[in-house]
Amino acid sequence: MDFNILLKNRRAVRDFQDRQVPESLVKEIIQDTCFAPTASNGQPCKFIIIQDRDYIKKLSDESKRNLLADLERNPSSSLAMYEATLRDESFNAFYNAPCLALVIGPKNVWSLDVDCGLTVAYFMFSATSRGLGTCWIALGANIRDPQILAEMGMPEGCRIVAPVILGYPTSIPQPLERHEPEIIKIIS
Amino acid sequence: MDFNILLKNRRAVRDFQDRQVPESLVKEIIQDTCFAPTASNGQPCKFIIIQDRDYIKKLSDESKRNLLADLERNPSSSLAMYEATLRDESFNAFYNAPCLALVIGPKNVWSLDVDCGLTVAYFMFSATSRGLGTCWIALGANIRDPQILAEMGMPEGCRIVAPVILGYPTSIPQPLERHEPEIIKIIS
Repeated sequence: MDFNILLKNRRAVRDFQDRQVPESLVKEIIQDTCFAPTASNGQPCKFIIIQDRDYIKKLSDESKRNLLADLERNPSSSLAMYEATLRDESFNAFYNAPCLALVIGPKNVWSLDVDCGLTVAYFMFSATSRGLGTCWIALGANIRDPQILAEMGMPEGCRIVAPVILGYPTSIPQPLERHEPEIIKIIS
Repeated sequence: MDFNILLKNRRAVRDFQDRQVPESLVKEIIQDTCFAPTASNGQPCKFIIIQDRDYIKKLSDESKRNLLADLERNPSSSLAMYEATLRDESFNAFYNAPCLALVIGPKNVWSLDVDCGLTVAYFMFSATSRGLGTCWIALGANIRDPQILAEMGMPEGCRIVAPVILGYPTSIPQPLERHEPEIIKIIS
């Protein structure tokens, strides 16, 4: 796919067909992310893939529960704007997606957030170029139950940076509004 | 440019032709970054563009000086591996690039690092698709002199996340070695 088309057609997709993404395709997308640059070529990102909608729902419930507990401890947190959504039992943070990729990495890598940001952009472009849709679900990163983490094989010392849902879109949403780029100064 | 070609051909470029990047082209690349996803569509990234090699060298000196001071305060820091490089007066952290884009944003945006990571990936792909080369220079982010920050118009409450050099490559480097992707577990 031409990059200019891809650039303008990648959207946050939250509405998926009832159709699983073949594991081989998920692996191809992850292979593409290996081309992403990372600080000092550290390549810290690792992946956990979940292709079981019930298990994905369980992770949504776990993350929502932890966020609500955080909000109760700190009612003035910026989470307050999501309170009604988090309390809605029918709300699945992962939008009933057929596939969830957790992008994780070692907590002690100082550049982990930016490395994962770059890597997820590759993931999104690769998925879009294959006709798939993605969305980074920040609300879904709060999985803390030791049993669930053990089931998922979460390595010691790692944290979840990016939960990314993946699937075949039912439709491609309109682009969200963007403001003009803010160029503060040009020194020439 | 076809995305599959772009994906495999984007490299960290540190060796540039003695030729300035037209300001209009820099602006087109920045316009393309506006398509990047950001948390809650917050679009926090702003840009400072420097197209003056002497000024870029001054920023390199400033960043190196601050990193060496950090290292003197904390000799066991991971910066130690860069000590010889930082002490080398002839070393320009920005590799004498003709153009430097500083990607900045508000310190109080919790997602700023990942938002900038996603945005820089768009910047890199857009630049590569136009025949330009880029490299994220983490060592160049430590600009703290109040006078320099004022000259650059750094807004109150913002920080530099990503200094990205930009220019016409003299050659395209070979890809750095990548390990196979680490898929910890597939739950299906």
